[in-house]
Amino acid sequence: MKQKSVLLLCLSFIVSINAFAQQANPTPVLYSEKTIAEMKRIQTAALASDYAYRQTAYLANNIGPRLSGSPQAERAVQYVAAEMRKLGLVVRLQKVMVPHWVRGEEKGELVQFDGMAEGTTQKVVLAAVGGSVATPAGGITAEIVVVKNYDELNALGEAKVRGKIVLFNNKFDTGMAASGFGSSAYGQAVAYRGGGASAAARLGAIAVLVRSAGGSQNRLAHTGSLRYADGVTQIPAASVSYEDAETIAYLAKMGTVKIRLLLTPQTLPDAVSYNVIADLKGSEKPEEVVIVSGHLDSWDLGTGALDDACGVGVSMQVPYLLKAFNIRPQRTIRMIAWMNEENGLRGGTTYAEEEKGNIGKHFAAIESDLGASHPVGILFTGKPELTGFLAPMLAVLREQGAGLSQIQPGGVGADIGPLTREGVPSFAPFFDTRTYFNYHHTAADTMDKIDPKELAENGSLMAVLAYGLANLEQPLPR
Amino acid sequence: MKQKSVLLLCLSFIVSINAFAQQANPTPVLYSEKTIAEMKRIQTAALASDYAYRQTAYLANNIGPRLSGSPQAERAVQYVAAEMRKLGLVVRLQKVMVPHWVRGEEKGELVQFDGMAEGTTQKVVLAAVGGSVATPAGGITAEIVVVKNYDELNALGEAKVRGKIVLFNNKFDTGMAASGFGSSAYGQAVAYRGGGASAAARLGAIAVLVRSAGGSQNRLAHTGSLRYADGVTQIPAASVSYEDAETIAYLAKMGTVKIRLLLTPQTLPDAVSYNVIADLKGSEKPEEVVIVSGHLDSWDLGTGALDDACGVGVSMQVPYLLKAFNIRPQRTIRMIAWMNEENGLRGGTTYAEEEKGNIGKHFAAIESDLGASHPVGILFTGKPELTGFLAPMLAVLREQGAGLSQIQPGGVGADIGPLTREGVPSFAPFFDTRTYFNYHHTAADTMDKIDPKELAENGSLMAVLAYGLANLEQPLPR
Repeated sequence: MKQKSVLLLCLSFIVSINAFAQQANPTPVLYSEKTIAEMKRIQTAALASDYAYRQTAYLANNIGPRLSGSPQAERAVQYVAAEMRKLGLVVRLQKVMVPHWVRGEEKGELVQFDGMAEGTTQKVVLAAVGGSVATPAGGITAEIVVVKNYDELNALGEAKVRGKIVLFNNKFDTGMAASGFGSSAYGQAVAYRGGGASAAARLGAIAVLVRSAGGSQNRLAHTGSLRYADGVTQIPAASVSYEDAETIAYLAKMGTVKIRLLLTPQTLPDAVSYNVIADLKGSEKPEEVVIVSGHLDSWDLGTGALDDACGVGVSMQVPYLLKAFNIRPQRTIRMIAWMNEENGLRGGTTYAEEEKGNIGKHFAAIESDLGASHPVGILFTGKPELTGFLAPMLAVLREQGAGLSQIQPGGVGADIGPLTREGVPSFAPFFDTRTYFNYHHTAADTMDKIDPKELAENGSLMAVLAYGLANLEQPLPR
Repeated sequence: MKQKSVLLLCLSFIVSINAFAQQANPTPVLYSEKTIAEMKRIQTAALASDYAYRQTAYLANNIGPRLSGSPQAERAVQYVAAEMRKLGLVVRLQKVMVPHWVRGEEKGELVQFDGMAEGTTQKVVLAAVGGSVATPAGGITAEIVVVKNYDELNALGEAKVRGKIVLFNNKFDTGMAASGFGSSAYGQAVAYRGGGASAAARLGAIAVLVRSAGGSQNRLAHTGSLRYADGVTQIPAASVSYEDAETIAYLAKMGTVKIRLLLTPQTLPDAVSYNVIADLKGSEKPEEVVIVSGHLDSWDLGTGALDDACGVGVSMQVPYLLKAFNIRPQRTIRMIAWMNEENGLRGGTTYAEEEKGNIGKHFAAIESDLGASHPVGILFTGKPELTGFLAPMLAVLREQGAGLSQIQPGGVGADIGPLTREGVPSFAPFFDTRTYFNYHHTAADTMDKIDPKELAENGSLMAVLAYGLANLEQPLPR
């Protein structure tokens, strides 16, 4: 085994230098000629297919927002399971207990600021952050303290924060996102949505507002999850739109700004829900599994088309295409529509727990969860040598403008993260994310944001990658 | 007079060919050397000034939405008057009776469509169209009939429309707008917002939905005015966002789509309001007037920064700059902040009526009401020969990238339209309107959409143009 690994290491090194270079010495075959030919056939079919688009549209438009615990999430589970059964796959629903948070009424209005016309208020566009507690039934009215970051908050100290509402006015870096580093920009901005409430509560704040952690400049509030720290008072939290954050910051420089804030979300008891797991059994090594997946739940403001109906749609299309061609992969291809990625990750966690004794049989895991724009290649987490194993697939994908690979330490998909951390080689489409964070977690995450051609490109990538991994003639380093 | 006109016609023809060509024969002086020098001085100051920006910000942020009849509109009147008095101008408030329409609650949700999860509804983002009547207090629930245009509506006929809610799904031409013809794209789309309600009511529809007449693809509803036809039942009307129009059209192809619609706007008795008129008296011909203007009222969803606080801001800046330099124009420069451009045009109409006997003394009128993006030059309505009179000013403005002129038949500003139709030469900044209609009449018309540099460019254009016209050594053809 050890000798073979060294050989493979050398191989992958050479391949990563030049995947097409003629090798003087014979090396182990990675993909059979038949597999390569079928990849190309699958690619051509995927680029012409509207299956993924129609599935995505059904999830987004006909079912709608699919927050964990909602009737729509349940409908989506049943729908995907039925579609997969139609293909003749082995389908099971894996029970997952999910958080059940329900958005209520939400209203913000400035009731005091410099220059305010008597008898008026000024509307603030906001959305409760997922998991937030409610305000008292009559709402709360208090002065807003604006800070850019945790340092500024802590510098103010309890004397200036107690009894007030803190606005974290941390700017999403639109330039960083526009230049292709959307995920990095999001990573910087999201810290305040997640941890702002408890940080402010520690200093006596009675509620927290967070500038939306996204690129929208269209009066849209961005939702998402928060984490209340243990032992700290749980205070209500809402995201305000970019515009409202700007306006409040402007007004706060001129004098006292007060807001009346009403949020009535509820956290109900955990609900029963499911991961949808559909297997296309492998012909030679059916016990070895390649997961191809997206998540079925979504936030509730939009219809979750980009996040992540499209990820489920392209995953469903993998077995659909193989069935259409009557191609059986050597390993089992397991389509998973994960539940509860957004606010708990219970689906991914439950799956990894239940498969604890079987992780070694998980040959690879793929998740698509960064939208549906043009894919430029493949992201992966695992040994750097994986690059060599991807090269023949990337040569096929180069024909559609997706010939790059890039290692991403730390994981490529939240739902497959528990598997990644156990050493399962993990993959994702490597997207152009310049616009994704303009819509992510907002009311504008809707079907029209998906370009059918770009979705088809992603469908092709997912299918080529899944099929290639399922038919790889060698084990992957892990 | 006639001979002079012919001479000027020749002159303007030559100038329009080449404003800098050396003339063999002496021609009448259009602008004195001193005027040209002062234009350049004003331009330099305007490009460096933040006065217009601060005024615009105050109107948008500190006062907020300024729909006619609202307390904010009244605050804006008093604010602008006070600012102009600070400059030592002769200020008067011209009484105008304005419509007083107040937006109420508005809610739309799909309650039936193919695939709908039991116990759920799907939210529709919408906004009552200005002037709309209310639904019954409990709302109305009915099937939606989707048409693209009036032809499709009429082809359906009463049998298929009676008792239903019509959605006019006419697409805003984003390509046309993106290529620089925003106003044309808007002109095409807005017909359904204005006339759709009565057209649908004639066939027995009980309410009307209109796809937003703008370029936003960010789940924003666009408001604006409607006109109910005489003798036709007045039915409630709402704009739906681009996204919701797309979704409803998609679902309607699959089966019956029903919506529950609640709108509670009120039309109150006409209210007293005012045009703010501030004169900087001319030194030589004080009885001749050059109007420089924008409108003070706005729609209520955003804060009316682009439409049209910025127009007022740049107009206020004209006398501000002249006062700062202690420059007195030869003719009177009259800054007007118009009231009620958006839903009645009562300000412009009242002014023209009251000045009926004095139209001949209105040397020229300027209005800025298409936002605050980079101006490329000057639009005008009047005799084509006006081009020649603009050339020396455009030579100055060319230094800031605004050296074009273009005739626009039919008028360049709604408030000055009644004057234009009486023959008053009329002018406006010639804007890059590629993005204006993405925000126009939506909640995203907010201060952040204004680039200080571009606003300063427009402030410069308005000041150079107003001052040049006020000091023109010859009469304008009219």
